[in-house]
Amino acid sequence: MKIGILVSGRGSNMEALIHACQDGRIDGQAVVVISDRAEAGALEIARQLGVEARFMDPKSHDSREAFDRSLVDALKEAGVELVCLAGYMKLVTQAFIDAFAGRIVNIHPSLLPSFPGLCAQQQALEYGCKVTGCTVHLVELAMDSGPILMQATVPILDDDTEQSLSERLLVEEHRLYVEAVSLLASHRFTLEGRRARTDLR
Amino acid sequence: MKIGILVSGRGSNMEALIHACQDGRIDGQAVVVISDRAEAGALEIARQLGVEARFMDPKSHDSREAFDRSLVDALKEAGVELVCLAGYMKLVTQAFIDAFAGRIVNIHPSLLPSFPGLCAQQQALEYGCKVTGCTVHLVELAMDSGPILMQATVPILDDDTEQSLSERLLVEEHRLYVEAVSLLASHRFTLEGRRARTDLR
Repeated sequence: MKIGILVSGRGSNMEALIHACQDGRIDGQAVVVISDRAEAGALEIARQLGVEARFMDPKSHDSREAFDRSLVDALKEAGVELVCLAGYMKLVTQAFIDAFAGRIVNIHPSLLPSFPGLCAQQQALEYGCKVTGCTVHLVELAMDSGPILMQATVPILDDDTEQSLSERLLVEEHRLYVEAVSLLASHRFTLEGRRARTDLR
Repeated sequence: MKIGILVSGRGSNMEALIHACQDGRIDGQAVVVISDRAEAGALEIARQLGVEARFMDPKSHDSREAFDRSLVDALKEAGVELVCLAGYMKLVTQAFIDAFAGRIVNIHPSLLPSFPGLCAQQQALEYGCKVTGCTVHLVELAMDSGPILMQATVPILDDDTEQSLSERLLVEEHRLYVEAVSLLASHRFTLEGRRARTDLR
């Protein structure tokens, strides 16, 4: 399965996915990385790992829809069958979702539906939660709302800061995202309503 | 520490708390159980365990505030210092909260802030979560919103029903509620904003 990865930042989850494709844990090939930010560190990391990496400029498009049409064209041109968002900060449009229906996946650093949106780690700390985690989910138009594929938990310690918690979460994110994309690439999930099941048990 | 327990139903969490007081895991005494429903099975169970148990009728009071004033009087009369809600379905009023400020605790069958309110287990199943849990929290006026003292997680299995999930959750609820009330009774929690810390680490 050919995988495209969308990024906006350093792309540590992207890096985990590319490594897992290259060493066979994911039965797929990372064929292209696209960033909506020119300065994203992920672009250089992807190139170093031998993956084509492109910056596409939202400002050179008239609208979010026009940008997403270009994005879809670039992904389709590369033969992408599964799109993984990895710290991609731009909201996607309906046209993008329709083009890859059921084949766009994201990882979010909270136990959704708690703490959607930005700064999920800080939100969980400020709420006073004792546990948080990460969620791999299919992407729908509403942010951080699609059917959940997998979740993993991370305890919040009394002396945690946003940084210490985010670092522990990232370890779980990399592990969980690789596992979920591996299952997706092998067509192991089925959906009943919002409930995703695997044939693993 | 003298503990009062409010119930509306069968009171399995109440039973866990009474047992833990009686065998010394909680350094406290369950002195009274009060139900707002005459038919609550918890009343008979409490009496069998040697704890005074009373039905107080909301319908014989003019308002929720009047009922809560009677409730406060009954609890104060019994010398209650800590109030534990155990499946108590009535929303409490500000007068009640003021009378036991910081000393009212509840257990909720979800990882708050996800799934407040009724049927939390079913909500988590229908959302398609892969993990849920239970939360012991201090009670504030807004339902299921006070500072969190402890949380425990429970995985959601592919073939879970509301019943199978609720049963697994109950086991964790009993364990967690006893542990949290034990720490509360020994004054081991401190609050910084919404973050509760213990001196255990």
